[in-house]
Amino acid sequence: MSDRPNKAPAPPERSADPNQHFGKPEGGWREELYEVIFESHTRTGQVFDLVLIGAIVLSVVTVVLTSIAPVADAYGQWLLAAEWLFTLLFTVEYIGRLLCVKRPDRYARSFFGVIDLMSVVPSYISLFVPGSHVLLDVRILRLLRIFRILKLTLYIQEYSMLGDALLASRRKILIFLSVVFMIVFLLGTVMYVVEGPQHGYTSIPTAVYWAISTVTTVGFGDLVPKTDIGRAIASFMMLLGWGILAVPTGIISSEITHQRGVRALTERRCTRCMATGHEVGARFCKSCGEALPEETP
Amino acid sequence: MSDRPNKAPAPPERSADPNQHFGKPEGGWREELYEVIFESHTRTGQVFDLVLIGAIVLSVVTVVLTSIAPVADAYGQWLLAAEWLFTLLFTVEYIGRLLCVKRPDRYARSFFGVIDLMSVVPSYISLFVPGSHVLLDVRILRLLRIFRILKLTLYIQEYSMLGDALLASRRKILIFLSVVFMIVFLLGTVMYVVEGPQHGYTSIPTAVYWAISTVTTVGFGDLVPKTDIGRAIASFMMLLGWGILAVPTGIISSEITHQRGVRALTERRCTRCMATGHEVGARFCKSCGEALPEETP
Amino acid sequence: MSDRPNKAPAPPERSADPNQHFGKPEGGWREELYEVIFESHTRTGQVFDLVLIGAIVLSVVTVVLTSIAPVADAYGQWLLAAEWLFTLLFTVEYIGRLLCVKRPDRYARSFFGVIDLMSVVPSYISLFVPGSHVLLDVRILRLLRIFRILKLTLYIQEYSMLGDALLASRRKILIFLSVVFMIVFLLGTVMYVVEGPQHGYTSIPTAVYWAISTVTTVGFGDLVPKTDIGRAIASFMMLLGWGILAVPTGIISSEITHQRGVRALTERRCTRCMATGHEVGARFCKSCGEALPEETP
Amino acid sequence: MSDRPNKAPAPPERSADPNQHFGKPEGGWREELYEVIFESHTRTGQVFDLVLIGAIVLSVVTVVLTSIAPVADAYGQWLLAAEWLFTLLFTVEYIGRLLCVKRPDRYARSFFGVIDLMSVVPSYISLFVPGSHVLLDVRILRLLRIFRILKLTLYIQEYSMLGDALLASRRKILIFLSVVFMIVFLLGTVMYVVEGPQHGYTSIPTAVYWAISTVTTVGFGDLVPKTDIGRAIASFMMLLGWGILAVPTGIISSEITHQRGVRALTERRCTRCMATGHEVGARFCKSCGEALPEETP
Repeated sequence: MSDRPNKAPAPPERSADPNQHFGKPEGGWREELYEVIFESHTRTGQVFDLVLIGAIVLSVVTVVLTSIAPVADAYGQWLLAAEWLFTLLFTVEYIGRLLCVKRPDRYARSFFGVIDLMSVVPSYISLFVPGSHVLLDVRILRLLRIFRILKLTLYIQEYSMLGDALLASRRKILIFLSVVFMIVFLLGTVMYVVEGPQHGYTSIPTAVYWAISTVTTVGFGDLVPKTDIGRAIASFMMLLGWGILAVPTGIISSEITHQRGVRALTERRCTRCMATGHEVGARFCKSCGEALPEETP
Repeated sequence: MSDRPNKAPAPPERSADPNQHFGKPEGGWREELYEVIFESHTRTGQVFDLVLIGAIVLSVVTVVLTSIAPVADAYGQWLLAAEWLFTLLFTVEYIGRLLCVKRPDRYARSFFGVIDLMSVVPSYISLFVPGSHVLLDVRILRLLRIFRILKLTLYIQEYSMLGDALLASRRKILIFLSVVFMIVFLLGTVMYVVEGPQHGYTSIPTAVYWAISTVTTVGFGDLVPKTDIGRAIASFMMLLGWGILAVPTGIISSEITHQRGVRALTERRCTRCMATGHEVGARFCKSCGEALPEETP
Repeated sequence: MSDRPNKAPAPPERSADPNQHFGKPEGGWREELYEVIFESHTRTGQVFDLVLIGAIVLSVVTVVLTSIAPVADAYGQWLLAAEWLFTLLFTVEYIGRLLCVKRPDRYARSFFGVIDLMSVVPSYISLFVPGSHVLLDVRILRLLRIFRILKLTLYIQEYSMLGDALLASRRKILIFLSVVFMIVFLLGTVMYVVEGPQHGYTSIPTAVYWAISTVTTVGFGDLVPKTDIGRAIASFMMLLGWGILAVPTGIISSEITHQRGVRALTERRCTRCMATGHEVGARFCKSCGEALPEETP
Repeated sequence: MSDRPNKAPAPPERSADPNQHFGKPEGGWREELYEVIFESHTRTGQVFDLVLIGAIVLSVVTVVLTSIAPVADAYGQWLLAAEWLFTLLFTVEYIGRLLCVKRPDRYARSFFGVIDLMSVVPSYISLFVPGSHVLLDVRILRLLRIFRILKLTLYIQEYSMLGDALLASRRKILIFLSVVFMIVFLLGTVMYVVEGPQHGYTSIPTAVYWAISTVTTVGFGDLVPKTDIGRAIASFMMLLGWGILAVPTGIISSEITHQRGVRALTERRCTRCMATGHEVGARFCKSCGEALPEETP
C-alpha cells in the first residue's frame, strides 16, 4: 500500500485571465485588436501595455498636481490640457475595448469595465456641470487599472497564494473583527459615560472613533482621557489592542504556512512516475527514486 | 505494529448550544415555545432569530442616535417611543424565555440571562429615578445578545478553535503580560522621577498611563518627554514595546499552527477503516488505501 | 535500525530554584528558617510567601499613593507610618535571609539580594539626607521581589520555554536591532538636515528620538515634519517600521514553534520502553505500541 | 530505496568576504597590508579592526555633538580638531586600501569603497565651500563602515538566513506593498475630498501622507479628521492597517520557518555516512544509526 504513489489529478485550472468571460472574437480586425488590447503575448500587445501604464501613471500625476494649489495656479492651463489629452486617449481605448470583445455588455458590467468608464466620465461631466470638483477626484481610480495589466503578466502565483490564504482565513478573521468591533463599541460607550462631552467625547460614535484609534494603537491624540478612571480604561484598551493583534497574525501565519505546505506536497511532481506528496527538503522521489525538480521558493 | 491504524475514540462532544443547562421541556406549548426561542432548526425559530437580530440592531442604533445631541434635540420623541417599543418587546421575550425553560432559575443566573435582564431594566429604572443617564447606556450591552444567535447557528468550529488556541496559550500570555506590566510600572516610575510634575508626569499612575501608551506604540502625545534623559528612556521604551510584540504573536501563531495540526490528525477519519492520524496533504488512508475525505480549510 | 527507540538521556537539569547557590544549612533553627523563607513546600513557608506578597503589594501601593499630590496631602502621616512599617518588616526579613543561608556573602551579591537591600535602604537614607525624593522611588523595585516567589512556585516551564526561545533567537534579534538602529540614526540625521531646528529638529539626538518614535509607529506628534520632502521621508519611515516589524515576529514565531517541536519530541516518553521522539499527534509508541501519555499543551 | 541516504552535494559556497573581488596581492608589503586592513585572522588585523571601530564610533559621536547647539558653542574648537584628526586617519586608511588591493578601481567603485570616500570628502569640501553644513552630515554614513567589520567576523550565518528569508519573500512583500500603496492613495484622495483644505488636507500628497500615518498606526495627530464621515473612513483605515499587518508577518514567519527547516535538513550531515535529510529532533542517523551532531539553534 505504502508503495502506491499519490497519483494526484492535475490541480484545478486557475484562471489568471480576468478577461475570459468577455469572449475573444475569431478572425478579422477584431481578433487582432483584442490581442493587442486584452492580451500581452504579442509584441504589439506588450508595447500597448507599456504605453497604457505610462499614460495611467502620468494622468494620475496630473490629478495629484492639480490638487496642489500653488502648482495648479502656476500651470493650470497645461494640467487641463494634459487631462483632456488623457481623457480622449482613455475614451478611444474604452471604445476599442467595447468594439473588440464578443460580449460588450459583459465587459461594460465587469469590474474593470466600470473602472474604465469611471476613468473618463468625470471629465465629460465637468464640461456641463460647473464646480464638479469632487467628481474629478474619481479619476484617481485609474490607478486600479494598472492592476489589470500586472495581474495578466506578473506575479500571478504570489497573488493567488496570498489570496487563497486570506480567503481560507476569512471566517476566522470575520470572527476576530466582530469581537474587536464589539469591544470598541462597548468600551467606547463606557468612555462616553466616564469622560463625557466636557472632555470631547461628545457622542457614542465619537467615542467609538476614539476607541478604535486606541485599540489599533494609532493614538492620534485629538481626543484623550482626562479623568483617572478614563486613563485606567484607556490603559487597558491599549494593552488589549496591542496584545490581540497577535490573533490575526497567528491566523494568517498559520494559514500561509499551511498553503505553502499543501502546494509543496501537490505541486512537486516526479518527472518519471508522476507521484506527488514529497516532503519539503526531499531530493528524490519517494516512490521511484528519481531526482525531484527543485522546490520553488 | 505500524499496520495498526490509530483507531481513535470519537473526539469528546463539544457543546455548541449554550442553552443546554436550562433543560428543554417535553411536550406542550412550552416545548414549542422553547424550539422557537432557543433553537433555530425550525422555520419559525429562524424567523424569530432574524426578527430578534433586527430588533437588537435597531434598538442599539436608537441608543447611539440618542447620544448625538443634535439628533436627540430634533427627534427626541421618536427615539423615546422606539426605545419603549424595544424595551417592551425584549421584556416579553425575557418572560417567554423564563416560562419555557425547565429550570428558569438557571437561565436567570446564566451569562445571557443576566444580559437579557440588563437589556430592559435600565429603561424601567429611568421611570422612577430621574436623571439616570449613565444607567441608560447599559442598554448597549444588548449588542452582546447577537453573539448568542451567531453562536448557535454559525462559525461554531472557528470560535472553538480560536478559543482553544487562546486557552492553551493563557499561561504564556499571562507571564508575558506580567513582565510587560512590571516594565511599564518600573519605567513609568523612572519617568516620574526624571520628568517630574512640571512636564505633566504628575503622579506615578499618570506616568504609568504614559508608559503603557508608549510601550504599546499608541503614543497619544498628550504627555511627552521634554528632557534629554526622558527622551532617551522613551526611545528605549518605544523600541522595546515595538519589538516584544513579537512574543505574544509568536505564542499565538505557534499555538494556532499546533491546533490546526492536531485537528487535522484527529478529525480526518478514513470512511472505510475509521483510522485517523493522516498527514496533512495525504490523499489516501495510510492504513487501508481508501480515498480520504477532503481537508477542511 | 528503525526499531531502535531514541533512548534519550534525561534532559539536563534546569535549576528553577534561584537560591541554590547560597547553600541550605543542615539542621538547627537555621535550616527551619531557610525552609520558611526560601522554600515553599512546607505550610509555614507557603503562609510566609503569601504574607510577603501581600506586604510587597501594599508597600508598592503606599509608594504609588504618596506620589499622588492630593492623597499625599490628605493622608501623608498614615502613608509615612505604613512606609516605615514595611521598611522594618523587610529589614527583619533581609537580616533573616542573611542569617539562615550558608553563604551570606553570595546571597548579598546575588540579583535578589541586591533588590532586597534596595527595598529598604532608601527609607533609611531619607532619615539622614533631607530631600532624597528621587531615592525613595527606588522602593518601587520591591515589585521585582514578587517574581522570586512566582518563579519558585508557578509557571516554571512556561518561563523557561519563553526564555529559551528568546535566548535562541538573541543573535538574530541583535542583528535586526542593529540594522534598525542604523536606519533610525541615518534617517534621523537626514531629517535633521531636511527639517532643521526651525521645525523642532534641534539636534541629531532629537531627530533620532523622532525617528524612533516614527519607525516604531508610536508617533507622539510632539515633533512632526512640516516640509514636503520631510513628509515624504516620514511616509517612507512609517511604512518601513510598520513592515519590518514582521521580521522579529517571524524570528520569534519560528523559534517558539521549533522549541515546542523539540520539547514534544524529547519530553513525551513511552512508559513501557522509555522511547522518545514520538510525532505530534501520535497516540501509540512508535517502537512498542504502548499507549503514549497525553501531550502537554 | 528507503535505505539510500540523501547524499547531498555540499551546499553552494556563500561568500562572506565582501572584499573578494578586489584581489589579494601575493607577497611583499602589499599582501601584509592587505591582511591587516581587509582580513581579521592575524593579530595585527584584529587590533586594526578594533582601532577602526573605535575611531568610527568616536568620529560619529563628534558629528552628533557638533549638532547640539550648546555643546558646539562650548567645545566647538575641540570638536573641529577631533573631526580633522578622524578625517586624516580615514584618509590614510582609504589610501592604504587603494594601495594594497590588486584592483583599486574595483574597490573604489564597490559599495564600501564609495562609503569610505564619502566619509572623508565632505570635510575637505568644507575647506573650500563655506557653509556646506548639509554636506557635513554625510559623514554620519561612516557608521555603515562598522557593518563591514561585523560582517567579516561575526554573525555571518544569521545575516545570511535573515537575508535569504527576506529575499525569498520579496515578490509577496512587493505585492503586499503595492496593494497597501493603492489603498493609501485611494483613501487619501477620498479624505482630501471629504475633509478638504479647511481641515488641513491641503493637497492629495498631504492627504496621502496622513493616510500612511493612519494605516501604519503611527497617528502623529498633526492632521486629524474633523467631519463625521472623515472619522468613519479613518476608523476603517485604522482597523484595516492594524489588521493587514498580519499579512507581511505571516509571509516572513512562514519563510523563516521554511528556511530553518531546509537548513536543518541540508546542513546536518552524518559524520560516518555523510547522509543529510535528518528530521528536526532526530538524534541518530536515519541511514546508519551513528549519533548525529547537535542541531545549531
